[in-house]
Amino acid sequence: MTLLHISPLDPRSLTLYTTYMRAEIICIGTELLLGDIVNTNASFLSRGLAAIGIDVYHQVTVGDNPQRLLDALRQAASRSDIIITSGGLGPTVDDITVETVAKLIDRRIILDKKVLRDVKAVFKSRKVPFPCESTRQAFVPEGVPWIKNNVGSAPGLIADYKSAKIICLPGPPREIEAMFTNDVVPYLKKLAGTSEALRTRTVKMTGLPESKVDGMVRDLLHLKPPTTVGIYAKLGQVELKIMSKARHAAVADREIAKIEKKIRSRLGDYIFGCDDETLESAIGELLRKKKMTIAVAESCTGGLVANRLTNVSGSSEYFMMGLVAYSNKIKERMLGVSPRTMDSMGAVSKQVALQMAWGIRFLARTSIGVGITGIAGPTGGTPKKPVGLVYIAVVTERKRVFKECNFRGTREEIKQQASQAALSLVRKNI
Amino acid sequence: MTLLHISPLDPRSLTLYTTYMRAEIICIGTELLLGDIVNTNASFLSRGLAAIGIDVYHQVTVGDNPQRLLDALRQAASRSDIIITSGGLGPTVDDITVETVAKLIDRRIILDKKVLRDVKAVFKSRKVPFPCESTRQAFVPEGVPWIKNNVGSAPGLIADYKSAKIICLPGPPREIEAMFTNDVVPYLKKLAGTSEALRTRTVKMTGLPESKVDGMVRDLLHLKPPTTVGIYAKLGQVELKIMSKARHAAVADREIAKIEKKIRSRLGDYIFGCDDETLESAIGELLRKKKMTIAVAESCTGGLVANRLTNVSGSSEYFMMGLVAYSNKIKERMLGVSPRTMDSMGAVSKQVALQMAWGIRFLARTSIGVGITGIAGPTGGTPKKPVGLVYIAVVTERKRVFKECNFRGTREEIKQQASQAALSLVRKNI
Repeated sequence: MTLLHISPLDPRSLTLYTTYMRAEIICIGTELLLGDIVNTNASFLSRGLAAIGIDVYHQVTVGDNPQRLLDALRQAASRSDIIITSGGLGPTVDDITVETVAKLIDRRIILDKKVLRDVKAVFKSRKVPFPCESTRQAFVPEGVPWIKNNVGSAPGLIADYKSAKIICLPGPPREIEAMFTNDVVPYLKKLAGTSEALRTRTVKMTGLPESKVDGMVRDLLHLKPPTTVGIYAKLGQVELKIMSKARHAAVADREIAKIEKKIRSRLGDYIFGCDDETLESAIGELLRKKKMTIAVAESCTGGLVANRLTNVSGSSEYFMMGLVAYSNKIKERMLGVSPRTMDSMGAVSKQVALQMAWGIRFLARTSIGVGITGIAGPTGGTPKKPVGLVYIAVVTERKRVFKECNFRGTREEIKQQASQAALSLVRKNI
Repeated sequence: MTLLHISPLDPRSLTLYTTYMRAEIICIGTELLLGDIVNTNASFLSRGLAAIGIDVYHQVTVGDNPQRLLDALRQAASRSDIIITSGGLGPTVDDITVETVAKLIDRRIILDKKVLRDVKAVFKSRKVPFPCESTRQAFVPEGVPWIKNNVGSAPGLIADYKSAKIICLPGPPREIEAMFTNDVVPYLKKLAGTSEALRTRTVKMTGLPESKVDGMVRDLLHLKPPTTVGIYAKLGQVELKIMSKARHAAVADREIAKIEKKIRSRLGDYIFGCDDETLESAIGELLRKKKMTIAVAESCTGGLVANRLTNVSGSSEYFMMGLVAYSNKIKERMLGVSPRTMDSMGAVSKQVALQMAWGIRFLARTSIGVGITGIAGPTGGTPKKPVGLVYIAVVTERKRVFKECNFRGTREEIKQQASQAALSLVRKNI
């Protein structure tokens, strides 16, 4: 804990907050307004606050403009208890956070020798000469507690304004992440008293569109706090996130388990996993359990299915071989796909997908063979076989199944959806 | 242009805006406030607005809460000319944008049969039965122009409120990107009249770390507006973005060309492309020009190199075959890698990479063969051959080159860096 001089903020006196605090995030930087960088700090801070049971109601981004930052801080203080700012603490004239906060809380800015020593120490530890510009980072509002930065040179601040706490953190993700985790989280936990536990569980499914899933769990989506369910859609995947808040984690977990049971009873077959599990890791788990192996012959997905399967650590146990057979010749020579079939049915056909699956299974001597052929676009489509048409086949010792799909989107989106459908078909037939 | 019913917004009457418009972005979604997803829409929209000379002064994020959205819209209208919202247009009860905008502008919500037809058409083209929940997406504020969504089912809206235009777009990135680019940009350009042009050019390079590139172009990074240079680093890739603002695009382009020339004179060999070009598309261009073909044998990258090469439209012209040879047996049987070499040198060795490259070139009968073997981790490393050790070989008719790399990071980061290094080695040896 490197938070210093916090005597005026003794959390024991702040019983006011023990039940409920609402937070707001203000990100500062013209580069964010230009869209040059994606704002990962906002999501990082939000996730971190949610994890300790503090709700974020607003995220606001302003440029390096003192007046607009001042307005944003005033507005935030009128509606939030905790304000966390990110950015604007660097050594350049563009960095306006310290001056603006000092103006807001009406304090002088002074050179703090302890801060200067810390800032210099950072450069020394990096064996970089101290740039005199960085002296600027040791100027802080008088009497305001500051937070040491062990990763970079900009210290953080904790200022009181009306009934709000303004916590200023630097912009670089490595720095904000370290300071938030090591200093701000313990500080907020104390401030909030022993607060509520927020627990979450994400149930993941594939094979149904979002609207269908929505219709099947509509009642759960209407649940009100402390236990709620949210629905999120990705390409070829829908996720239901159950959240529960309670004084004790065990109570929240029990609530979540009840809801999960309901979801499973309605959507059982479509669910492939929870939380960090992916479709490919779920398949890996199944294959390992059943001591089965897999090989994949891909045309339009171009190696994406193999790539996803091998993203799983330990996949070398069951993933034997992938073949990207882009040309008809390679399909014929390597996989034994019949040139007659390709002539009569076309390379994008159910028959070719089945022959590819059969061929790769034979070649790699695996329990499962997968064949994928289709048109990823944007060119190569015809009225009868449009861009997005994909055939997927799975061949096992006892089964031969196939699926015809019509996807829309860019080349990469069609590849992604086809890989999802292929993995989905594999999962159902292990 | 699929923007319909815009008669009340004839841009010719809006001379007010010809010199200057300020925009604000409001992103809607509790998942953003929970930090569950990173807000890429805000940066996409900001970048797009900057590109047409419209300044963004605020980005605001609120949850799926009608009152807070209403407040945000009111405040935005008090300070901005253009308000773009993202999200909250889906078919579920959480989707509150249409109702909230209707309340703000005091209009009834009606079922628009034309919109319903469009929404139904989207499902039909996907061969998915129309879910009755999606009827909700055809309810729009009466008399408000809507924007057709060709990618998904949620239509957009353009509402007038006081002196501001409120443009509502859906949340899924694919949808918002298509609608913003195809419909909103032409609309805003007309609305703004001809304003200042902002031109950009991104020069992309690989093979040098960011700090090295930074040192070589330090003077350019210090340039002040109207022409500036920014530096951005990704895994195995550094980009320099040149931006220039001028009354006429030609003037800005001339300034950019001057800077680009300087960059090229200093970093020539490391530069592989500009703007939308990727390393894989640059390779495609080179292969096509020289009428060469390529095949790839991958172990640790697991199909990622094939996947990246085939992300390029038209890659079937030069990409013949990819083989993911995970096990030693497959390396031996399919690629003819010598079991003696694998025994004595190990499967992760320069010799095996070369034999894999040679084997796949022979098998696929291509001009270029690529072999990649390494340890992606997190397990499988030894003191002598640690996680992140990767050997890459490229074999052409006249050359045999290889590279030894040591990467750090997660399994996926190591795969990504290895694929980047492999493509980089290919590019230098075409």
